[in-house]
Amino acid sequence: MATTPRRVTVVEVGPRDGLQNERASVSTADKIELVNRLSDAQLPVIEVSAFVSPKWVPQMSDAEQMLDGIKRGPGVAYEAIWLNVAGLERAAQFRDRLQLRPMFSVAGTDTFMRKNTNRSVDERLEELPGWAERYQKLGLDWLDVGVMAAFGCNYEGDVEPKHVVTVLQKVEQKANACGSRLGGIGLADTMGWANPLQIKRLVGTVRERWPNAPIKLHLHDTRALAVANVVAALEVGVDYFDTAVAGMGGCPFAAHKGAAGNVTTEDVVFLCQEMGVETGIDLDAMIAAGQLAERVVGHPLPGKLKSGGNLETYRARARAVATA
Amino acid sequence: MATTPRRVTVVEVGPRDGLQNERASVSTADKIELVNRLSDAQLPVIEVSAFVSPKWVPQMSDAEQMLDGIKRGPGVAYEAIWLNVAGLERAAQFRDRLQLRPMFSVAGTDTFMRKNTNRSVDERLEELPGWAERYQKLGLDWLDVGVMAAFGCNYEGDVEPKHVVTVLQKVEQKANACGSRLGGIGLADTMGWANPLQIKRLVGTVRERWPNAPIKLHLHDTRALAVANVVAALEVGVDYFDTAVAGMGGCPFAAHKGAAGNVTTEDVVFLCQEMGVETGIDLDAMIAAGQLAERVVGHPLPGKLKSGGNLETYRARARAVATA
Repeated sequence: MATTPRRVTVVEVGPRDGLQNERASVSTADKIELVNRLSDAQLPVIEVSAFVSPKWVPQMSDAEQMLDGIKRGPGVAYEAIWLNVAGLERAAQFRDRLQLRPMFSVAGTDTFMRKNTNRSVDERLEELPGWAERYQKLGLDWLDVGVMAAFGCNYEGDVEPKHVVTVLQKVEQKANACGSRLGGIGLADTMGWANPLQIKRLVGTVRERWPNAPIKLHLHDTRALAVANVVAALEVGVDYFDTAVAGMGGCPFAAHKGAAGNVTTEDVVFLCQEMGVETGIDLDAMIAAGQLAERVVGHPLPGKLKSGGNLETYRARARAVATA
Repeated sequence: MATTPRRVTVVEVGPRDGLQNERASVSTADKIELVNRLSDAQLPVIEVSAFVSPKWVPQMSDAEQMLDGIKRGPGVAYEAIWLNVAGLERAAQFRDRLQLRPMFSVAGTDTFMRKNTNRSVDERLEELPGWAERYQKLGLDWLDVGVMAAFGCNYEGDVEPKHVVTVLQKVEQKANACGSRLGGIGLADTMGWANPLQIKRLVGTVRERWPNAPIKLHLHDTRALAVANVVAALEVGVDYFDTAVAGMGGCPFAAHKGAAGNVTTEDVVFLCQEMGVETGIDLDAMIAAGQLAERVVGHPLPGKLKSGGNLETYRARARAVATA
């Protein structure tokens, strides 16, 4: 049994996954300011934008301006996503400034895959060789696979760990058949179905099959269990999480309105601080970024630390009073 | 090491602890309706109101009307709180309908005790014999002791488990000296300082000294860890929690504004459902009560299930589609 890691990597997805789901239009200048504040917080990775069709996702139509406009922080890697060849080509233009990850996403259920991409999981897998080839041309001979709805699906119900392994095995076979390998494994609780027991079960099952693959969790707080799910994941040694500043984001295809979004970056950083797990992130700067995110979107966001505050601040004050 | 309990008792404190902290005035009729819906959800215990001075807490001035007006549910115990002799006397008038618990509260730090009651912990302990005597006259020869700020204090910082034990030992000595005994032990994270590791540490330390005393946790979600703290408590066998419908409440003396309140009843009931822990509570009725609570107070409340929905509903729909 793995034990709690001493250090975890937190990937900030708010500027992409969060702002993509905002109805209100946020100016490019505000987005750049937000990314700059996130860089100040010394996040190791920031997902800045998405190279997707401005027709379908107008919120992300300024991807190029974002990458041109941000002030890059030392030690911060910037990432973006794409959904088609045109998007990858746009992203590849920024190779000097962008960490290109050879992503390939599938879903734990056919219905969710169809809602998201208008094709079944098997149809999606047919596209894998094309992606493997494109990535190989960029010198990337592996696939970082993300499994959406890996814990459950509002349309098809619970997703069993062994089914996720089956999907991943198909991905690996296809990848190997065209000269690529399976890299990292992302498990996304896209619609908030996971609970702490299931986190341990799925991580355990996947790790049994791929003991050396890095596992990244992408957790949504739809039903209040996201932070508890992070704790469960830490307890089985998971050290890699997607999170969003102020808890922005959510899932536009998930058939429930008003539900909470991604697990909140500053809340997870606080949890780690209190549990003695290093993140390398400046919590106070992260809280300031959370407060900025809320101002920028113009409505309350679910993260708690931006109002609750860093306990280290209270501890310092208490020490000052005690020694005065 | 204790294991996860098969069944837990959830005490609903929203109508008292939640509404007491609302600025907006909520009508007695709305409060009665809310309690009636909570009774429909088959909560084992509902804290209905507080017998306190209408001058200081006008929100609770209708305690008598509440107890006269609610429709009592089968198997539901109704409780109330009081802070002085006059309050206990008012409550005792309803002995036929009210479960009188011989409560005695202290705090983990002097500063918080003073902010709350204008006296130090030791001064508060001087009042114990008077309370023990009053409760004995009502046939209650024990004290259910609540320790506020048992995990940490915005004014004095972290509270060590051994300090909580020292406070509880003083309570027990005083109680024994006047013919009462220590009953249940309530540990309140009044200002949101607890984390999962500390929950296990404090519960373990208290249980080592009082292996047979029921331990009840009262957790606030000020810094996003409340549900994770419930999971940690379940893992060490705690089976008794205060929670509030829709996450109402909070702490008026805690020196931070806009912070989240109590851990949310319907979110905890959902957690238990998903982890196979029985509560005896009807989650769908509880979600409806959460939605009503939000309408009644007229502003968003932090609970997640009232928008995220019960997974059992999605599971049933998915099964219906699969067999259609």
